[in-house]
Amino acid sequence: MENKKTENSTKETSRIEAFSDGVFAIAITLLVLDIHVPSVKDNESLLPLLLADWTTYLAFLIGFFTLLVCWINHHYIFESICRCNGTLLLLNGFKLLVVSFTPFATAMLSKYIDTKQQQAAVNIYTFNFFLMGMAMFFIWYYASRKGLTKTASPEILKSVTRLYILAPVLSGTIFILSFFSISVCLILFVIMFLIFMIPENTRHRLEKRKHANS
Amino acid sequence: MENKKTENSTKETSRIEAFSDGVFAIAITLLVLDIHVPSVKDNESLLPLLLADWTTYLAFLIGFFTLLVCWINHHYIFESICRCNGTLLLLNGFKLLVVSFTPFATAMLSKYIDTKQQQAAVNIYTFNFFLMGMAMFFIWYYASRKGLTKTASPEILKSVTRLYILAPVLSGTIFILSFFSISVCLILFVIMFLIFMIPENTRHRLEKRKHANS
Amino acid sequence: MENKKTENSTKETSRIEAFSDGVFAIAITLLVLDIHVPSVKDNESLLPLLLADWTTYLAFLIGFFTLLVCWINHHYIFESICRCNGTLLLLNGFKLLVVSFTPFATAMLSKYIDTKQQQAAVNIYTFNFFLMGMAMFFIWYYASRKGLTKTASPEILKSVTRLYILAPVLSGTIFILSFFSISVCLILFVIMFLIFMIPENTRHRLEKRKHANS
Amino acid sequence: MENKKTENSTKETSRIEAFSDGVFAIAITLLVLDIHVPSVKDNESLLPLLLADWTTYLAFLIGFFTLLVCWINHHYIFESICRCNGTLLLLNGFKLLVVSFTPFATAMLSKYIDTKQQQAAVNIYTFNFFLMGMAMFFIWYYASRKGLTKTASPEILKSVTRLYILAPVLSGTIFILSFFSISVCLILFVIMFLIFMIPENTRHRLEKRKHANS
Repeated sequence: MENKKTENSTKETSRIEAFSDGVFAIAITLLVLDIHVPSVKDNESLLPLLLADWTTYLAFLIGFFTLLVCWINHHYIFESICRCNGTLLLLNGFKLLVVSFTPFATAMLSKYIDTKQQQAAVNIYTFNFFLMGMAMFFIWYYASRKGLTKTASPEILKSVTRLYILAPVLSGTIFILSFFSISVCLILFVIMFLIFMIPENTRHRLEKRKHANS
Repeated sequence: MENKKTENSTKETSRIEAFSDGVFAIAITLLVLDIHVPSVKDNESLLPLLLADWTTYLAFLIGFFTLLVCWINHHYIFESICRCNGTLLLLNGFKLLVVSFTPFATAMLSKYIDTKQQQAAVNIYTFNFFLMGMAMFFIWYYASRKGLTKTASPEILKSVTRLYILAPVLSGTIFILSFFSISVCLILFVIMFLIFMIPENTRHRLEKRKHANS
Repeated sequence: MENKKTENSTKETSRIEAFSDGVFAIAITLLVLDIHVPSVKDNESLLPLLLADWTTYLAFLIGFFTLLVCWINHHYIFESICRCNGTLLLLNGFKLLVVSFTPFATAMLSKYIDTKQQQAAVNIYTFNFFLMGMAMFFIWYYASRKGLTKTASPEILKSVTRLYILAPVLSGTIFILSFFSISVCLILFVIMFLIFMIPENTRHRLEKRKHANS
Repeated sequence: MENKKTENSTKETSRIEAFSDGVFAIAITLLVLDIHVPSVKDNESLLPLLLADWTTYLAFLIGFFTLLVCWINHHYIFESICRCNGTLLLLNGFKLLVVSFTPFATAMLSKYIDTKQQQAAVNIYTFNFFLMGMAMFFIWYYASRKGLTKTASPEILKSVTRLYILAPVLSGTIFILSFFSISVCLILFVIMFLIFMIPENTRHRLEKRKHANS
């Protein structure tokens, strides 16, 4: 198989991507299974009952955007990665483990965000989020170090690395802050969303700022 | 990564499509989880129990055809889109949010279509439907404006745009009418289905009518 | 878009196939959700409880092989189909409707195969099965009539058509027989499985027999 | 269709892979549905309740890594397989049957690993595991015998075969040992994971050892 590597290279990553796309797509769609249709009693009406359930929808949106942005960045990173080896498969496997765990973390958030157990639920969710940031960074770092990426200028590779160091740093900060203030966490989550929702733009801005400094 | 855009272009959209296909396929298959096998008591028989449950099947069919036609049009639009950027990923993400919410809206429809809460259930379903129409229009409008489509005559692009303006207009009308008459909604839903089930044909007809007028 | 058809043709069918693969894969995996882990009481042990549940496993296997053989034939047919139009998308959509309904029909079979409601449950399952055979035939018939297939000798096309006429005929027979004898149904189901599990071989045999006759 | 085989070959295996990826991705993500959010009573707190549920997480991890390593090896094998026939589809179908059954075996493990029914639950899980190893071996053995693989030196093919004989042998041993000692099973499971997590490396090591011997 060895001597076939060059011809196969596109096919190899394309199957990692297909499998990962599958896991992402399922995890993101399973979130909806956690929203239960309420049972209306005789003297009630449906709309107020649904609105009272706002924590479920908030958790659904948080889970959805977590996984969507995660997929966008997975897609962005694998645009550059064109070769694949066993270690990359395992790192990606760890990433998928976190992704497939996310519906559970979201379900916990949804159930306890409005109760006394709020603290523990948010801690668990943000820890899961932190692991996701770590996995993202490790995938990119490993692939760029081992030369599994397309040939690009070292400067571009470095600026992507700078971008993805932010992922574990910010999500780690969110995890630590989750022990102190949940609203600050939510604000940082939105900021992180804005940073990573269009990674190419952020990378450009980082690069420009660096050039302005030097 | 920048300077690789041209070579990558096919690969980029193909992964959006794969991920979207995944979400569509799961959402459309999850609908069945909402049909429960009835528990037959000793003096009952299965068939009448199933028939009594007709609202579940109606909702299943409505949900299925909503998602199927939505997929057909997603497929039709992405036949022309060949480049991709961050904003398109986000617009598509919004679309997928609505798609993944559809099994819940359908479950609500199924549970309450035959009860006093009918009104609220239909409102929610048609609002979800309206968001779907909006998302479809925005994806096409953004892509055609930003030149992310294949080079085609401006006339063809315009006629596709004319077709997809119909999506939010008609689904918005259905949403508004859902406050007044549910049967009119159902009729309009069928008409919209006929218009969008084979988008290429409708586009041709719109174009011909325009030529006949001028 | 019209004038792009030739270049796009591969891409078009590949996305139908991806979407269908998704629906098949999910439907076939959802079957397992219907097998519940039994709750063992203090004076019981697990194995006999599991064995007592044999109808669930039988239904799981029947559902699995129904969908697997159906996928194999879908794959076989779409090997030859290389162009795609709106009607084909709708016919395929009908097929997917039946596929996505199969986990429900299987769950019903699993729950009632060993009870007084057996008859109704088998009728519903075999009716679903018959619709599947019909859909398969219509997809092939329409595609071969409209010239959406790869250029092949008319003789080969005809022999494939002869093969797929068998699908609705046999599954229709099974449906009718389900009102009289369930064990005959099961035997015919196994025969049909043997015929369609490797469609290419069966087609060859049909062709040879025809040549022998003429 | 016969005479088209050569041109089609890539497309054929790519669709088996897509379908299999779908089934793997769904099975691996369904595992999470088995982790239930605990209901906290007034005088309890969430974290200890979650920790008390450690068997669920252990089972989730075992199930996840079983399916991940299985996918990695499926991916590895199908890198070399480039042609496909009916029998291969059936062998792969058997493999997918075992894969789609795994969430159930895992759920049973999760429920009974800490009870008196432990023995039976572990037996069932390891039997499922053994079937998986068998299926893997048969797929490779059949494909390499029938010349469905890419042209590679016979030596490489043989060394891959030597690697995949290990799969049924080791998993069969684990199944037999599961009647005697569960901890030994767990150790062997970890060893097997290390052997198969990067199949290319193990194959190299096997080859080197052989050359050293001769």
